Amino acid sequence: MGKRQLLLMSSSAVHGFGYLEHAEEDLTSFLQQHSVQRVLFVPYALTDHDAYTEKVGSVLRKLGFSCTGIHTQPDPVAAVHAAEAIYIGGGNTFLLLRTLYERQLVAAIRERVLQHGVPYVGSSAGTNVATRSIQTTNDMPIVQPPSFEALALVPFNINPHYIDPDVNGKHKGETRQERINQFHELNESPVLGLREGTALFVDGDRATLVGPHPSVPGECYDARLFRKGQESAVYKVGSDLSFLLKQ
Amino acid sequence: MGKRQLLLMSSSAVHGFGYLEHAEEDLTSFLQQHSVQRVLFVPYALTDHDAYTEKVGSVLRKLGFSCTGIHTQPDPVAAVHAAEAIYIGGGNTFLLLRTLYERQLVAAIRERVLQHGVPYVGSSAGTNVATRSIQTTNDMPIVQPPSFEALALVPFNINPHYIDPDVNGKHKGETRQERINQFHELNESPVLGLREGTALFVDGDRATLVGPHPSVPGECYDARLFRKGQESAVYKVGSDLSFLLKQ
Repeated sequence: MGKRQLLLMSSSAVHGFGYLEHAEEDLTSFLQQHSVQRVLFVPYALTDHDAYTEKVGSVLRKLGFSCTGIHTQPDPVAAVHAAEAIYIGGGNTFLLLRTLYERQLVAAIRERVLQHGVPYVGSSAGTNVATRSIQTTNDMPIVQPPSFEALALVPFNINPHYIDPDVNGKHKGETRQERINQFHELNESPVLGLREGTALFVDGDRATLVGPHPSVPGECYDARLFRKGQESAVYKVGSDLSFLLKQ
Repeated sequence: MGKRQLLLMSSSAVHGFGYLEHAEEDLTSFLQQHSVQRVLFVPYALTDHDAYTEKVGSVLRKLGFSCTGIHTQPDPVAAVHAAEAIYIGGGNTFLLLRTLYERQLVAAIRERVLQHGVPYVGSSAGTNVATRSIQTTNDMPIVQPPSFEALALVPFNINPHYIDPDVNGKHKGETRQERINQFHELNESPVLGLREGTALFVDGDRATLVGPHPSVPGECYDARLFRKGQESAVYKVGSDLSFLLKQ
């Protein structure tokens, strides 16, 4: 996996920032360091592919990159093979993964990223599908993919939009921690809870938590790692999480 | 469907009440009016079947009913055929539905409830599986059922633990309304958002929203109905929702 280059964002929207604004610096340096000029955007997690590609493309153009929606290409698999960089946006994870399977893109993207080092950017659902499965998504199962197994660019699970329990809350639905604990009653894979505003940067066999440093007292961008049968552990922005890649 | 008898609760836990306490009156009258003495409890939505059956059974015994866990029966399908009433508890909806399929219980329960009028009680995940599909669950897909199609005791979807968006919230993950709207981009079925504390009572072709009357200013037990391409509509406790059964 020495070639793997990933930027896995928790979300595109973050409180206090414009759309993708929190990630502009990391996104720009990630793409520039791989001499990327054109980004292949995958808008399958939402239904209006044109509007979604325009929304993300307008940010990318401002940062100096061009952007093509994979849905405009006659042969999506060929587009993946020709891509300088692949960016999969958020939305509904089930819809996204079903479409990736329908269009024969799971194996194609996996090969390009793992074997050829094509840079991969994911956000929210695009981060979920980059992991070993979509089993720790927060989304509703609005459509049924043939499998919950995903691109497996990393050998663990991520929970995007991670949020701690509201200690003053009156709502009795399961907290995010309780849901992840239920996952671990039946699955072994570690789950990295990535808060909005943070991302996991993966360079080959090294993984680092990136994100803003808290500017407001009480703001927290720590990630929380859940492992089966263990207490969860907290990692600050800047932490080396490479151990998660050694499964 | 003239024989159908359902009590579909949003949740077992409600702020300000003990476990199942909010539902004691409705549950007791529902079971008594059908002369039920023994309840067959289905604990498959959680992994510890004995503990879960004991938790619900202790409430049922206090109310005057006996309770048997289906997992203690040598032949679960035969247990369904012999049941006076079937109660499916909450937990993880994917795990619950997968187990119902594995044990050949989907068709068996459906037949008993729809053709023979065996009273059915559901809570949370047990309410999700009573509808046409589990596509509007809030749960994580911790295991994969063979299908998202469920018991279809009613011809629409329910979102249990329904909650309105937090207008002061900083979290940018999709709101419940946004998730249900995504469902409606790809599906036709109406979705009834059932708040914690409320339930849908179905007697043949009549459906009524039941629940506590607000005792604290600001508390709200209204249900919110989402239909594809329409503004959502609010229904108070006591409302006749029979129109939802005519699909």
